Amino acid sequence: MIPLRFLDDVMRLKVVPRSGWISYRISKHDIESVSSHSYSVAVIALTLSEMARQRTRGVDIERVLKMALLHDLSESLTFDISKAYLRYLGRRGSQLKTRLERKAISRILSGLENERLVRAFRTTIEEYSSSKSLEARIVHSADALDLLLQIIEYERMGYSKTTLDPIWNETKSKLVGYRFTLADEWLRELERVRRGLHIKTRGRKSGSVLLRT
Amino acid sequence: MIPLRFLDDVMRLKVVPRSGWISYRISKHDIESVSSHSYSVAVIALTLSEMARQRTRGVDIERVLKMALLHDLSESLTFDISKAYLRYLGRRGSQLKTRLERKAISRILSGLENERLVRAFRTTIEEYSSSKSLEARIVHSADALDLLLQIIEYERMGYSKTTLDPIWNETKSKLVGYRFTLADEWLRELERVRRGLHIKTRGRKSGSVLLRT
Amino acid sequence: MIPLRFLDDVMRLKVVPRSGWISYRISKHDIESVSSHSYSVAVIALTLSEMARQRTRGVDIERVLKMALLHDLSESLTFDISKAYLRYLGRRGSQLKTRLERKAISRILSGLENERLVRAFRTTIEEYSSSKSLEARIVHSADALDLLLQIIEYERMGYSKTTLDPIWNETKSKLVGYRFTLADEWLRELERVRRGLHIKTRGRKSGSVLLRT
Amino acid sequence: MIPLRFLDDVMRLKVVPRSGWISYRISKHDIESVSSHSYSVAVIALTLSEMARQRTRGVDIERVLKMALLHDLSESLTFDISKAYLRYLGRRGSQLKTRLERKAISRILSGLENERLVRAFRTTIEEYSSSKSLEARIVHSADALDLLLQIIEYERMGYSKTTLDPIWNETKSKLVGYRFTLADEWLRELERVRRGLHIKTRGRKSGSVLLRT
Amino acid sequence: MIPLRFLDDVMRLKVVPRSGWISYRISKHDIESVSSHSYSVAVIALTLSEMARQRTRGVDIERVLKMALLHDLSESLTFDISKAYLRYLGRRGSQLKTRLERKAISRILSGLENERLVRAFRTTIEEYSSSKSLEARIVHSADALDLLLQIIEYERMGYSKTTLDPIWNETKSKLVGYRFTLADEWLRELERVRRGLHIKTRGRKSGSVLLRT
Amino acid sequence: MIPLRFLDDVMRLKVVPRSGWISYRISKHDIESVSSHSYSVAVIALTLSEMARQRTRGVDIERVLKMALLHDLSESLTFDISKAYLRYLGRRGSQLKTRLERKAISRILSGLENERLVRAFRTTIEEYSSSKSLEARIVHSADALDLLLQIIEYERMGYSKTTLDPIWNETKSKLVGYRFTLADEWLRELERVRRGLHIKTRGRKSGSVLLRT
Repeated sequence: MIPLRFLDDVMRLKVVPRSGWISYRISKHDIESVSSHSYSVAVIALTLSEMARQRTRGVDIERVLKMALLHDLSESLTFDISKAYLRYLGRRGSQLKTRLERKAISRILSGLENERLVRAFRTTIEEYSSSKSLEARIVHSADALDLLLQIIEYERMGYSKTTLDPIWNETKSKLVGYRFTLADEWLRELERVRRGLHIKTRGRKSGSVLLRT
Repeated sequence: MIPLRFLDDVMRLKVVPRSGWISYRISKHDIESVSSHSYSVAVIALTLSEMARQRTRGVDIERVLKMALLHDLSESLTFDISKAYLRYLGRRGSQLKTRLERKAISRILSGLENERLVRAFRTTIEEYSSSKSLEARIVHSADALDLLLQIIEYERMGYSKTTLDPIWNETKSKLVGYRFTLADEWLRELERVRRGLHIKTRGRKSGSVLLRT
Repeated sequence: MIPLRFLDDVMRLKVVPRSGWISYRISKHDIESVSSHSYSVAVIALTLSEMARQRTRGVDIERVLKMALLHDLSESLTFDISKAYLRYLGRRGSQLKTRLERKAISRILSGLENERLVRAFRTTIEEYSSSKSLEARIVHSADALDLLLQIIEYERMGYSKTTLDPIWNETKSKLVGYRFTLADEWLRELERVRRGLHIKTRGRKSGSVLLRT
Repeated sequence: MIPLRFLDDVMRLKVVPRSGWISYRISKHDIESVSSHSYSVAVIALTLSEMARQRTRGVDIERVLKMALLHDLSESLTFDISKAYLRYLGRRGSQLKTRLERKAISRILSGLENERLVRAFRTTIEEYSSSKSLEARIVHSADALDLLLQIIEYERMGYSKTTLDPIWNETKSKLVGYRFTLADEWLRELERVRRGLHIKTRGRKSGSVLLRT
Repeated sequence: MIPLRFLDDVMRLKVVPRSGWISYRISKHDIESVSSHSYSVAVIALTLSEMARQRTRGVDIERVLKMALLHDLSESLTFDISKAYLRYLGRRGSQLKTRLERKAISRILSGLENERLVRAFRTTIEEYSSSKSLEARIVHSADALDLLLQIIEYERMGYSKTTLDPIWNETKSKLVGYRFTLADEWLRELERVRRGLHIKTRGRKSGSVLLRT
Repeated sequence: MIPLRFLDDVMRLKVVPRSGWISYRISKHDIESVSSHSYSVAVIALTLSEMARQRTRGVDIERVLKMALLHDLSESLTFDISKAYLRYLGRRGSQLKTRLERKAISRILSGLENERLVRAFRTTIEEYSSSKSLEARIVHSADALDLLLQIIEYERMGYSKTTLDPIWNETKSKLVGYRFTLADEWLRELERVRRGLHIKTRGRKSGSVLLRT
């Protein structure tokens, strides 16, 4: 009855590190788990959705949250395949990644031992992958926004802006690509916050708006 | 526009440890973050809800997921107040914890700078606290199940069964108290799995059903 | 005979982190334990006391050291309640913290199972809390000086001055409030040391007076 | 002149974790780096080679050491692709892994910017992959022996024998497959050592032959 | 005025690990700092002294606490020289260690830039080294008791009794050698506690007297 | 047959930290193991040797690699004796270190229980210590180059240039002393890379040649 194999895979996400950060010289001890990341994505997506609803109605929050919770589930088996990795494989790298993740998802979902639930979860993941629906674009935007917020956190800890610049710029481009207005507005403000961290003028008050302690 | 103060609090949950584990002699390096825990609770609650829907219909998954995501949000400020702490304060300990958490939630939600959203999130958190609706009981059950699964994970790592016994038993009692049939069924199977970890018979095959690697 | 419960609480201070640092973006892996902090406070207080004795006589070092060793004992149960936490509760936050710590101390001391010793230790802790005697003000000053020295250590590791400025300034104010001349003199020199860390002039020799390796 | 890109990849191996251990519930903080593992493999292979030379002559130690040092170089880009991962892909998993590693090696070696050196290093890696020469079989044996010794280390720390049994058995089978007599002899003794760790008889002297401290 | 060099050495003890534990397979992440250890020794010595005073009077607690705080100060420079190290050097190992520590102490104390204080601290350290006075024997006993309590903590975490047995036995012998009655009584009770951790009888209640959580 | 004691010492190098970094304020969690360091030294030495061979022939790579693998073996017992330590002992510090390391090596090699192998390994280590042969100077150069590359890695992570300057300069001097032309050329380029990390000009492209991700 209890889907032990599936739960085993879900629990492992607590200890699977987001290894991509290694390439940006984040200490392995400060690298978040996939679970931690997915949690932030879900809360950001929830907030974006509620705000979008206030403007325009018509966001299906149940679908948004399901996608946010399941979007990185495959990493329980694939362990966050290095992005650098895919880069040197060129176009085929992306295809390969997609294929590997699909296989991993099938394997993980089979652990549910509940055919209707497998179909439901697979549908959710496929909606996310196709990046078309408003709901999917909200989750993709939340995924990128969490990355940008995390970069700001790392820079507040003292990690090097120079080392993190490439991932900031790449993520910014992706975010713009999702064409979700609210996220664009947030992005502009995050850029301002990040600039504020690195301006060192004599006499500046220490409290940036985000630096509430 | 972007709710910086709120996001700041959400991001901090990635580094707020579930300090309660310290009392059970888990190494601080193996202690999960509040974010990691909340992620598991959300996925478990989603799975329970979908399965309950197959049996009886009538679970509002959007509400379930919102409660799961927001149920420990106050710990961004309160930092997982030690349970041992409350115990020695007696009955007043529980009241105190509730009051402190309510204050913390108000402070965190104010960071949304969006009155409608504050009300919506507060309603969600209050539904969880009152533990009455089916949806709230599902999330409470998921919270307890994640704890039991985490104990099993720690025991698989080699942490001491003897040291972890009190928290297992206490959590089991709570879980039963939520009177959610599906969770009761899962509990019985988890107890069997845990026993399996600690039986050391000569010639036993190494693979318990959960120990798929 | 052996006060097992009391020793259990004392030993736990080795693994209770000074969680307040989380708010200043110190990696959880670099956060000192309460034991480590209390040790430094005791040695600093000893040094201050001996130096004060050379000037004016009349410092009771036994009382100084006992206060230094016991001043954070309550955190074995309370786990370093977040300072941010108290801030949003306003004036009542301080009262609350005091009450909680008093309860925790009673609980911990009861583990001594030795009524005379309980009274002796409680007297020591109360002298510290009232902050009036010269000896108490020396320990409070040492507590603040350890914090300032620790900030300098973190900044030498590369943690961000901007992020740490608020805690530096707050601690400086407290220190001045204890009206202990020797500590004021030390403070002025520490401020000079800290400024030295962040001036980046071409051709500067690398060795600040503290940076002996 | 200095092959910066190549050195960059070599240095990264110090922080790339041997992630496969995650599946066996080793705390991420106790997981060795690829560099650490490769060092042990090289020293074990050197010892095996010198001992084999004493018996039969004819081992080319330069080739052995080069293979040991370069055998996991690809993981600087691929980050130790999960073995579990390959398992669910079946036969095609192995082929895929080989292809990915070959691509990674090409990319890394190109960083040498020295065509003759690229060819030399590639030849070394290919000799290792084909597993035919005596020298290659020695390095494969050393790779397996390091794994077995590491399991013993983890079990000495308290990690669970039950959890580690599957990887022990799998590695043992591989080792036997390399048909290197000396390694077979070592294996038998390691099995005896491991059994010794887990026999708990009253009155047993604490010092196993390996437990010298 | 402020003794920067001395404080620098004192602060470093927060990050100097008690490396001796490495030989007993404690994960480097669970190894306490010298500061943490010294803090426990001081509190244990204080407790022993107060209890001894109740029986017989005549313990100079100021001297006890000074010795406890300064007894491992040299490790700020020597970094906890491995005990295994000394063993293979035989008798000369002990002499060597003593000489090295004396040199280190001279160097560290010179940082006080206060001749009277240097003499006072040196006298304290020499009293400890000669192990003769009641006060010195109390601190040595506290040093050993902290080690035994720490072993129990590690075994509660799941570290292996077999691996830790040699250090337990060795420390027990030393403790007996200090001929301090109260410590002998404590030792007998600690042995009972340790045995209790490892007896696994069906139906045993989980709470040993020390296992209060 | 299997040299268990020797392998035990080799395996321990995976967990012996290069403690010298503590003095330069590297977090203990980012401090590499002796194994990790020795691996890099071996690969750098291999690369230097192959490149030297292309220019002038006549490098015995087998000897180079053996020296690289064994040059820090003694630290399995001595635990990376603090350099600061030796400094305050003056000239006698160096002699002392040499003597201690020689004793440690004898003890470790005795674990091989194979007299011919002991002699062979001892010859290798002595060749390294005398620093005369081309092969020995290559390994010493590789040892220094790994240190410089590691400093650059730490500075990329955000560790402070000011704090690391003394060790950079000291290592640079040593490297020049080994009079190995190729290493001198590499040094000049590393100095250029390091300067590049710390120049902060507006509009600078983020990608230094080494910062490939």
